[in-house]
Order: sequence, then structure tokens, then C-alpha cells
Amino acid sequence: MPTTTPPARPVLIVSDHTGLTADNIARALLAHFPGQPLRYIARPFTADVAAARAVAQEVTALSAAGERPILFTTITQPEVLAELQASPAHLFDLLTPGINELEVELGQTAARTVGGYHDMHDTSAYLGRMEALDFALATDDGVGDKQYGLADVILVGVSRVGKTPTSLFLALQHGIRASNYPLAEDDFERESLPLPLEKHRGKLYGLTIDPRRLHAIRTQRKAASRYASLEQCEFEVRRAERLFQRVGLPVRDTTSTSVEEIAAGVLSALRRS
Amino acid sequence: MPTTTPPARPVLIVSDHTGLTADNIARALLAHFPGQPLRYIARPFTADVAAARAVAQEVTALSAAGERPILFTTITQPEVLAELQASPAHLFDLLTPGINELEVELGQTAARTVGGYHDMHDTSAYLGRMEALDFALATDDGVGDKQYGLADVILVGVSRVGKTPTSLFLALQHGIRASNYPLAEDDFERESLPLPLEKHRGKLYGLTIDPRRLHAIRTQRKAASRYASLEQCEFEVRRAERLFQRVGLPVRDTTSTSVEEIAAGVLSALRRS
Repeated sequence: MPTTTPPARPVLIVSDHTGLTADNIARALLAHFPGQPLRYIARPFTADVAAARAVAQEVTALSAAGERPILFTTITQPEVLAELQASPAHLFDLLTPGINELEVELGQTAARTVGGYHDMHDTSAYLGRMEALDFALATDDGVGDKQYGLADVILVGVSRVGKTPTSLFLALQHGIRASNYPLAEDDFERESLPLPLEKHRGKLYGLTIDPRRLHAIRTQRKAASRYASLEQCEFEVRRAERLFQRVGLPVRDTTSTSVEEIAAGVLSALRRS
Repeated sequence: MPTTTPPARPVLIVSDHTGLTADNIARALLAHFPGQPLRYIARPFTADVAAARAVAQEVTALSAAGERPILFTTITQPEVLAELQASPAHLFDLLTPGINELEVELGQTAARTVGGYHDMHDTSAYLGRMEALDFALATDDGVGDKQYGLADVILVGVSRVGKTPTSLFLALQHGIRASNYPLAEDDFERESLPLPLEKHRGKLYGLTIDPRRLHAIRTQRKAASRYASLEQCEFEVRRAERLFQRVGLPVRDTTSTSVEEIAAGVLSALRRS
């Protein structure tokens, strides 16, 4: 007799805005329940009663079909929220309890308006992020090294170690002006820092990686090349690590580290410096 | 007598991981209390009792200095959390109540381990994001148009309308293969879509902007040029909008819209198509 897999339970993410916050919290909560078959259904921009009612109808249909929907929402406007509360989902009201508590703690009535948390609310911070992104792109991969004086941090490492995604993430998410410099054969012949980096020692942050992982990444890009060979990867990583050690750079291994984690490490290092 | 501004209240963001989720929720909650003078203090990677105790000591010092710290945490490990709970901060335990409720609803004991929500937990999704980023970079600004067949979406608009940040965000955050094509003078002379876009009509997404805003952005980049002149910006935006309308593209105005919001709009459009 074939075993049947249980159907994936519907998890609705309902927000009056982009839904990033709601998605983040829902996943952070559900990560504590590994193995649960779930399917995420995003319903961003549910900003008025009519939109919320449409979501409630979806929930009703899912429920009628025997599914047991779970709904996470960051909606705070009472009449919009009420539509969802009336639906047959197990509802997680992610913000209201905290807002109620903050009203007491801060002695101020909450706004509870639609889109209370607007990414561009703080315009100067937003523009700072966009400028940082321009900067990261303009100084990616060793180009624009004359602008290193303006950088907050310069990531250093061999090709495909993860410098570019990390720079872009630091810029987009945190408004950090992150440049990056690729270490290549020429650099390994010197016993010290590459010339463009000499004056910026305090801003450097080294990235390294397991050579076998690097080999796999480079093979995907350029199979059967010297560039991708395990031997070459081992050579480059060894030389890069030796350089980092000699110069005394903070170093992060990116082998099983996400850009979010590397970025957080860079931020901590910046805070300490 | 000079009026004194109230001191900014310390808001600690304490996480056993990068702290992105905790920061997100805290800001979403506090956005409902505009005008409160606050200062954010990030304490990521607070992953064991010793680290939590160090944070608790900071809180004690702040409190002793007459400040009234508020602490937001996504820590779920009971003994680490207990250190924070013992500190004199007003504590917002962001995940525990939801986890408790989910334990009942899902009939499963929660893991409550450190770093439960790991960005690379789902490795294939993570690699998908990195590949999407490579793709977005390789097909940025109209280059690599031979790869448009592999794109999930192609953003179309005039120079500096916001195509590149949006593409990179879609890739990094959502794993969407987003290319972008800059409309230039040559394109406006044709009555129809630029040739490289002809075959990909279903993937196109137009971006537009207030010409005065575009003028300001371009002026910052290249002051007093024809490129940045208000007249030129008005001309290009008018022609671009006419093209979008003729072809029947979905269009988003980026004038006061963040990349997060534009990206969410693109995702909704993709979901409908």
C-alpha cells in the first residue's frame, strides 16, 4: 500500500504593504518546526477592507476544502484586521500585541495607519542606501579603486569567494559603502598588500572559502579550466589566507555562510573599529 | 531658557543570529509611534549565556544612567533568554509567544535551538538567490540581452529610473532572475518595442518617474548636462510612458516608491501572469 504524504498546510502571509516583515517573522517562527509540510501564500498590499475580505474568502475556500490555513499578518488597522479575524484561519496577529504594550510604555497612542512602516519613511536613510549601491557597483571587482577613500569597507578575496553579493547586500540593506578587491596571481607574488589597498588597511575585511567549494562554484562558471581546477583553487586560497594572516585582517569563511551572515559580521567589525 | 530635547531612548535589538528579523519587527512596531526620539543598538550573534549576560550588563548600565532601555529579542533558547529577562529593560520577547501557540496548533514540540532560522537552511533557495544575482549583474543595463530568454522579468525604463537597484533586490531577496533594459533616444524613434525586447513582451515591466525627480537624480550624477536637463528628462519620460501605454505594459511610478515596494509589485504581477 503506498503511503500518502500529508498535504502541505497553507500559510498565508498577509500585509498592507510589501509583506517582508510578516514573511520574515512567519519563517522565523516556523523554522522551529522542521519537517512540517507547508506552502506559503503571499498576499501583500492588502490595504483595505475589500482586499482583506477577498483574502478571507480565499481562507474560507481553503478551509471548506479540508485544509487548515494558518495566517500571519502585520495589519494593524482594526477594521481591516477584523475581516481576517472573522475568517476560519488560525490567525497570528504579529504586531497588535506589541503595539498595545508600546502604547503604555511610551505613553503615546499608536498610529495604526495603513503602511505604518514605509521603507522610504526615513528618506535620507533610503537615499543613503541607493547611493551606497551606486558606490558598490562603481567599485566592484577592483575597479574604481581611486574611490576607496570613500568606502566604509573593502572586501578582499579570490574570485568567486562571495565579495560582490556581500557588497551589494551591505549597500542595499544597510547603506554601507562596500567596495571589493579581487586577489589575483600578481597579488600573490608580492609579500604585502596589493598597492591599491595599502592606504586603506583599516577598512579591509578578508573573505575565504573551502577550496573544494570554490572549485565547485568555479566549475559551474567555467568548467574544465585552469581557473576552476581544484589545484588552482587550493593555491589561491592558501596564498590569500597567508596574506590575510600576515597583514592581520579580520577574515570570514564563506563556505557555509550566507551573505546576511557575512554582512552582519562586517557590521560588527565596523562597529568595533 | 533653552528647551532641552529629551534624550533618545535606547532600543536594543538582540538576536542569536544576524538580527535582521528582530530589527524588522522592532521598526515595524515603532513606526506606529512617530516622533519618539530613539537610538537603536544592535547586538547580533548573542548566541550563548555569556553573550546574553554581557548584553544584560549593558542594559543595567544604561538603566543606572537614568535611561529606560527597551529590548527586542528573537532569542528562543530559554537559558539565554532568561539572562535578558533578568535585566532592567522593558523586554519584547518577539518569538516565544508565537512558538508556544504553534506548538499547540501544529502538535509538534518546537526546536528552540540557537539560530533556528538560518538563511542558508534551505540551501537550494539560497543558491537560487546567488545565481539570480549573477544573472541580474550579467544582464544589467541592456547588456547580455541574448540571455533574456532565461529572465523571469525584464524591467524597462529610462536611465536612473531605478531599474538596477530593483533588479538586484529582486535577485538577492527573492531569487528572481531580473534583467533590465534602458530606454534611450534610438528606442523612442521606433513606434514599437526595442528589438531585443520584442520576443519577451510577457516579461516586461515598465518603470516611470516624475521628470523633476529624475532631473534631480541625474543632476547629482552629471550636473548641467543635457542628460540631466529638466527638458530632456521630461522628453524621455513622456516618450517612455507613451511606449508603455502603446504596448500595454504594467507600469510602476518609482518617484516615491522604494525598491522593496517596486519589487513587491513585480512579484504580484509575476504571480498573476
